[in-house]
Amino acid sequence: MGRVTTRMRVARVDKGQRVIQADTVVVEEPLEIRLDGVPLAVTMRTPGSDIELAQGFLLTEGIIADRTDITSIRYCNSLDENGKNTYNVLDVSLAEGVPFPDLGLERNFYTTSSCGVCGKASLEAIRQRTRHSPADDTVTVAPDVIVELPETLRAAQKVFDSTGGLHAAGLFTRTGHLLAVREDVGRHNAVDKLVGWAVEQSHLPLRETVLLVSGRASFELAQKAVMAGIPVLAAVSAPSSLAIELSSDAGLTLIGFLRGQTMNIYTCADRIGSSQ
Amino acid sequence: MGRVTTRMRVARVDKGQRVIQADTVVVEEPLEIRLDGVPLAVTMRTPGSDIELAQGFLLTEGIIADRTDITSIRYCNSLDENGKNTYNVLDVSLAEGVPFPDLGLERNFYTTSSCGVCGKASLEAIRQRTRHSPADDTVTVAPDVIVELPETLRAAQKVFDSTGGLHAAGLFTRTGHLLAVREDVGRHNAVDKLVGWAVEQSHLPLRETVLLVSGRASFELAQKAVMAGIPVLAAVSAPSSLAIELSSDAGLTLIGFLRGQTMNIYTCADRIGSSQ
Repeated sequence: MGRVTTRMRVARVDKGQRVIQADTVVVEEPLEIRLDGVPLAVTMRTPGSDIELAQGFLLTEGIIADRTDITSIRYCNSLDENGKNTYNVLDVSLAEGVPFPDLGLERNFYTTSSCGVCGKASLEAIRQRTRHSPADDTVTVAPDVIVELPETLRAAQKVFDSTGGLHAAGLFTRTGHLLAVREDVGRHNAVDKLVGWAVEQSHLPLRETVLLVSGRASFELAQKAVMAGIPVLAAVSAPSSLAIELSSDAGLTLIGFLRGQTMNIYTCADRIGSSQ
Repeated sequence: MGRVTTRMRVARVDKGQRVIQADTVVVEEPLEIRLDGVPLAVTMRTPGSDIELAQGFLLTEGIIADRTDITSIRYCNSLDENGKNTYNVLDVSLAEGVPFPDLGLERNFYTTSSCGVCGKASLEAIRQRTRHSPADDTVTVAPDVIVELPETLRAAQKVFDSTGGLHAAGLFTRTGHLLAVREDVGRHNAVDKLVGWAVEQSHLPLRETVLLVSGRASFELAQKAVMAGIPVLAAVSAPSSLAIELSSDAGLTLIGFLRGQTMNIYTCADRIGSSQ
């Protein structure tokens, strides 16, 4: 895990006084994901859990449905200028019968509709692709459990305290037991790594779980939760309008501003029980 | 500006007690950018300043160098299911002689090098594309000016207080005068809108300016500052390793953890003067 953080020299200024000191910084490097040798995507990520990241990305993009859709994932022999492997290129082989995705610009979720690009078209595209919809999941989670999750996540974040630069995502059972936590410089990568862990464990769909993210709830994060069949998404900060619309449409419980003893439940509030 | 926020019903939970109330939420909608009718990119953004966003995106991607490289930008007649224009598709016409970008998957900055995908290759790609390098800018900014910027930015953020869901980016003179502020659900969009404003005003390259962002400093944000010729990038939160490497390589002053009277200067500290 030496590549997750690095040490840098920094000029620390306090009330105009300058001191040169060492600082721990989170590592950001490009990861290229290839499908049977063909470049699919490049994401800027924090190295570590790369295979999970690739698996989670393929799952949340609708390219695979579970682990059996992949026959192998390996680091390519991509060399830097010193002839050393960069460990920044992964090649994924799809199982026989798994359709190779359309790699045109139109492959984007948001442009698959024939109508004008709009929020409704984005929702419709996801509705067509979801194989693990959370809509039927009748799990209930007590609010007392929900309000404890951020503290559990923070305690599990090993790297954050030393850099302040990482987003975290945690997957919990309905009783608040932490199943897995992943961190990354990109919040979507942290969630893809979690989902990829679940793919690896054959835990899909992620019924009766709660996904907690350390930042805001965007459309993209709600999409990833829906694609993995997660029934409850909780965020420490604000949700966007389209994240709320997608959650409502797909039957995902969306919680925002989860702080202290308070939270806002934006959609599917029936899953959150009473505290009595 | 009615599309920047929307009202939603929310179940507010406090110590287990639930109250239904109205909440203001930031709007997120897809924007498709086309070049002479050909789809180039889709970004999830907060509506408003769309033309600036398109101009800034094209500038920071290295497709245009200034306003004269564009002959027109207009909303396409993209209709939703009710036959109303979505105002989510912009078509940009390039001036004669401006090369049409390669639209293959390889167009990505990170994959243009023949060596393995790595941080160095990403820096090299930007070095080749920059037409407004900040390296020669000899501006100095007093630390007393820098520490005042976050408060000025917060005071100028009209929307943040009502939603908590928007990233902000502000462009300042070396004496701390606010030139422009833009907000968006995506931090990269907020910066592109600012740069697009400068394109519109023919202010490129943005010599002797300071760019302040409300969150972290990623590689992508440092890249946008470099492409616009901005000499100083300051972030309220942490920078990533690759943002620091790019800043060092391109001659950009990178400041992180700008809070209260303190800041960390990661690169090109000579531009930040002493407070005496």
